[in-house]
Amino acid sequence: MLKVPDHQVAGHHARDGKLGPLIDDSGRFYKPLQGDERGSKEVAFYTSFSSNARIPDHIRRFFPIFYGTQLLEASDGSGLHPHLVLQDVVSGCHNPCIIDVKIGSRTWYLQASEDYIQRSLKKDRETTTLSLGFRISGLQIYDSKESGFWRPEKKLVLGFTADDVRVVLRKFVSSNSPTDSDSELDCSFASAVYGGSTGILAQLLELKAWFEDQTIFHFFSCSILIMYDKEAILKGMSSGAEIKLIDFAHVVEGEGVIDHNFLGGLCSLIKMISEILTSPDENPNITCLQDYEKNHSYLENGTTE
Amino acid sequence: MLKVPDHQVAGHHARDGKLGPLIDDSGRFYKPLQGDERGSKEVAFYTSFSSNARIPDHIRRFFPIFYGTQLLEASDGSGLHPHLVLQDVVSGCHNPCIIDVKIGSRTWYLQASEDYIQRSLKKDRETTTLSLGFRISGLQIYDSKESGFWRPEKKLVLGFTADDVRVVLRKFVSSNSPTDSDSELDCSFASAVYGGSTGILAQLLELKAWFEDQTIFHFFSCSILIMYDKEAILKGMSSGAEIKLIDFAHVVEGEGVIDHNFLGGLCSLIKMISEILTSPDENPNITCLQDYEKNHSYLENGTTE
Repeated sequence: MLKVPDHQVAGHHARDGKLGPLIDDSGRFYKPLQGDERGSKEVAFYTSFSSNARIPDHIRRFFPIFYGTQLLEASDGSGLHPHLVLQDVVSGCHNPCIIDVKIGSRTWYLQASEDYIQRSLKKDRETTTLSLGFRISGLQIYDSKESGFWRPEKKLVLGFTADDVRVVLRKFVSSNSPTDSDSELDCSFASAVYGGSTGILAQLLELKAWFEDQTIFHFFSCSILIMYDKEAILKGMSSGAEIKLIDFAHVVEGEGVIDHNFLGGLCSLIKMISEILTSPDENPNITCLQDYEKNHSYLENGTTE
Repeated sequence: MLKVPDHQVAGHHARDGKLGPLIDDSGRFYKPLQGDERGSKEVAFYTSFSSNARIPDHIRRFFPIFYGTQLLEASDGSGLHPHLVLQDVVSGCHNPCIIDVKIGSRTWYLQASEDYIQRSLKKDRETTTLSLGFRISGLQIYDSKESGFWRPEKKLVLGFTADDVRVVLRKFVSSNSPTDSDSELDCSFASAVYGGSTGILAQLLELKAWFEDQTIFHFFSCSILIMYDKEAILKGMSSGAEIKLIDFAHVVEGEGVIDHNFLGGLCSLIKMISEILTSPDENPNITCLQDYEKNHSYLENGTTE
């Protein structure tokens, strides 16, 4: 019944006998609790969040539904292991295009261990976290039935410069083959995915309004998944564009202060996506793409590397 | 003609033969250029900013007018020294109440020296910079003709907790004597200073809208001065409430990205001031004020310590 998810773009993978998340065919996602305090912190967040009456419904829909915890046979064959039972946020989509954006110019916080702080700070300085206020942690772009997905390797993704991020956010909504770096990106799905009253930008702006006000939680090292269904657009259907927040192992109490770190990064992402909508034809310098072609990992449709 | 300013609440002071700013009686403020690259960076910023046609007038008014640079006899008696010639932003006010708020949860930036980064990071962690996204660098609150100003010492101000900051932002707009910690703060000037269509909150929101869009400059370690004239309110006149951005020795180019660090801190300050306007009667725990009384430095009206 349980299997390894096809469309996981970042985080630990249940491959080659390693511990990682599983899904079932009823739309549930089983995430193994991390052994250290991260696991218990994530359970504590989901428990607190799902019972908090102050979270409005139009914000709650941006979070996976939480069904509780469950002991399951672990994907690494090590026996029973506690798992978070969550909504599988991509279950409705056959060939989803997904970007995982880790939000905030700081992924660490005062309550963390000095070792965690130093490691996080180093990674923040080496990626676009510091410069942009967010970094891309992983992505997949559906190409075609024949070619499957473009899913660049983690090492390449973490090496993205600010310009690379601009290019990827355009590539994400272009009809060009994602590995074709010679032609100009057409951004032909920008308005269907990012634009409109229910598109990605409108959802991010709704989230922003909440973050300008909420002082309950501070979300460190948390990601926004940006998703849509390219095939649906090509068939003239709704893009299914959606955002979901995930990864709450580093959420701390807000103590009456807004999450200015998340909010700042969110505003930076909003500005970058707005610019694609207002200037879809202005291609940034795309020479940085040349390297992608050499390094990309290309996946068959439906395989998992 | 030149004299030491009466109402400087933070930064280097021209006292006891030290190098510091001077003012004249025509409303100009002479800031000595710091010897290292900070001096030249601040001149470069003012030069670039004052000639940049993309800065709208309703934003330009939040910055001191720049008149150029001038060689002047230095306040430390060391001979001629180059000075920035700026608008004296408090010259119109006899007894101004002033808070200097250093904005941003990070006062350092990648282009700075490793030594500067480590020193700044340490101070950011020790103050409310990290937790609130801003810290108070200095303040003065006018009490009365007899008692003059309350101007807490730098060491006390840099030790403020998040709760202390909440209390000080309420104290700033209360008719209570600033050194009286027994009675509840009445926030009786909150609506005249923070509120209204031209008050501090409206000005901060205008600034915020600009920061959501502008990608020209990133303002590290820059302050917002919040000022008003308490005597004017008591006489039934306009409060003269005003914000001014100051201290641009650490401004870097935006490179097409918004200043998410400044914006996040600004939103946090806006939220805290909004709460005073919506709940002027909800006094936070004021036990932290007890220490103030023991430690405060109390100044005669018009003296300079």
